[in-house]
Amino acid sequence: MATNMQVLLASRPVGWVTEENFKIVNTPVAKPAEGQILVRNHYLSLDPYMRGRMNDTKSYAAKQEIDQVMVGGTVGEVIESKNPKFKVGDIVTGAYGWQQYGCSDGTGVNKVDASKVPMSAYLGVIGMPGVTAWVGLLDICQPKAGETVVVSAASGAVGSAVGQIAKLKGCRAVGIAGGKEKCDYVVNELGFDACVDYKAGRLNQDLKAATPDGIDCYFENVGGEILDAVLKRTNAFSRIAVCGLISQYNATEPYGVKTFQAILTNRIKVQGFIVSDRLNLWPPALKDLADWVATGKLKYRETVAHGLESAPKAFIGLLKGQNFGKQLVKLI
Amino acid sequence: MATNMQVLLASRPVGWVTEENFKIVNTPVAKPAEGQILVRNHYLSLDPYMRGRMNDTKSYAAKQEIDQVMVGGTVGEVIESKNPKFKVGDIVTGAYGWQQYGCSDGTGVNKVDASKVPMSAYLGVIGMPGVTAWVGLLDICQPKAGETVVVSAASGAVGSAVGQIAKLKGCRAVGIAGGKEKCDYVVNELGFDACVDYKAGRLNQDLKAATPDGIDCYFENVGGEILDAVLKRTNAFSRIAVCGLISQYNATEPYGVKTFQAILTNRIKVQGFIVSDRLNLWPPALKDLADWVATGKLKYRETVAHGLESAPKAFIGLLKGQNFGKQLVKLI
Repeated sequence: MATNMQVLLASRPVGWVTEENFKIVNTPVAKPAEGQILVRNHYLSLDPYMRGRMNDTKSYAAKQEIDQVMVGGTVGEVIESKNPKFKVGDIVTGAYGWQQYGCSDGTGVNKVDASKVPMSAYLGVIGMPGVTAWVGLLDICQPKAGETVVVSAASGAVGSAVGQIAKLKGCRAVGIAGGKEKCDYVVNELGFDACVDYKAGRLNQDLKAATPDGIDCYFENVGGEILDAVLKRTNAFSRIAVCGLISQYNATEPYGVKTFQAILTNRIKVQGFIVSDRLNLWPPALKDLADWVATGKLKYRETVAHGLESAPKAFIGLLKGQNFGKQLVKLI
Repeated sequence: MATNMQVLLASRPVGWVTEENFKIVNTPVAKPAEGQILVRNHYLSLDPYMRGRMNDTKSYAAKQEIDQVMVGGTVGEVIESKNPKFKVGDIVTGAYGWQQYGCSDGTGVNKVDASKVPMSAYLGVIGMPGVTAWVGLLDICQPKAGETVVVSAASGAVGSAVGQIAKLKGCRAVGIAGGKEKCDYVVNELGFDACVDYKAGRLNQDLKAATPDGIDCYFENVGGEILDAVLKRTNAFSRIAVCGLISQYNATEPYGVKTFQAILTNRIKVQGFIVSDRLNLWPPALKDLADWVATGKLKYRETVAHGLESAPKAFIGLLKGQNFGKQLVKLI
């Protein structure tokens, strides 16, 4: 009898996540009831938002319960169907979480065309991270051609799309990333105009050099000192989309933002957002993203861990910035 | 020959403003040239924004130059006119600054009707501070009936209008002010639902008690610990209008805002604004404000210092929160 490996939340982390916060179990594969489908997951998406779910605090989403399968987006193949909307062999995205198989009535499960792009892209550049980039940049920041757009975590799944979309819109795109290799990739392969290596120890002066005309739009994934450095370079009427604050997720003491006054002085609009709040924007975003990927205008990179049992370690690496582009776990 | 007493900026403050940063001089009253008017200023408005102008740093407005007359709004009477748009006896608002007389071609000078309300009201509730309250609350925060609106510096010129307008729109209005006397005034005379005395030493718990349903809109005048306390109580999709950060204007070390992450978690919109950026909103705002004052729906209080020579001390008192309502200097 086939078993379904699952990763459960064993305990809530205090500060940094450790592998001990997770528990791997093997359970029987579910039998789909009438109206249900069974999906063999091929890829699991690992995303920073998952860290927030692990806390026992008020957040934008329901918290991850202890001893339940970790939440997460998946892409896989329908291997059994008792639902007329799906047939065996369909490639589908879903939110089946950290497990090898998913069984459900198909709500929130979407068929995707994996004939032209690999199915994994639907967890990244043509999926939630890509839509997040599109919404935060185009709907919230609304950059005009010629403006300077800065994005932190620039080599990540979201950040790499933000900068490339900014370039497509005629902006100067400046990334912030950790390490020379990521910065070289962002500039040389993705076509950003510049990239600041925040680990080089000259954040303020390097950011100043990279943004000679100041900053009009900032797509925030990181927070902490990087946020303060960016705020110092903002122009009047600049816009900041707050998508993530990954530097804070494992911090036991929150960083104190010292340049908040720039929001007043420069009449900045700061908008926190979660892409799932803006479902009406997914169809136009996904259309743009698929077009751009198909025509080679939007590039992406993946870091793939192999086997579900490697997911906890890969997730901790993601939180530490060890991934390069979209972090996936290949399950099959 | 009549003399025109003026207050000049003598030196830029480091940290707290002192009276030594100002210099009082007596100069001959100007003779209006063809096309000009001469105005005897009756009241000078003192406002927190003036502190920012005294710094030698990038700000939203041109900085105050050394040895020049301090900037400021005034209301007074035309005593000589060589401009057909004005006649002797007209009561006018202008930006003649910290001096007894103003002489100009009339640009930016507006006639007001002082027959129904005292002319001083045009520097406060029916002037820049009132419009600031209207714009920040109604245009930026856009509160809905039943929502909770919090405003800091609640007994001040801007804050007292914010809470009263919130009540007119069917909201729960909660003030934050320094001391029991101000809080009593805000609740008992202005009709706020509650007021938190931040000097009482129980800011977080008192704010929690005053906002049982959380906070939907925050009109920020103060910053610092009060901002952190408010951010902890924000609801999903709340809005924050950043009008001022008076706690920071004389600080040598900026306060570190520790709860920035609430902006993400609660998808908050934070918007810094300056009322002079939104000139299109002044006419509807002034009409509302004049109507509300005339019908007794909008009350105001003034603290009046007497004589231009008292302006520096009164201004320092304003920055320390010693005023009660709109701070004016009576010049005649």
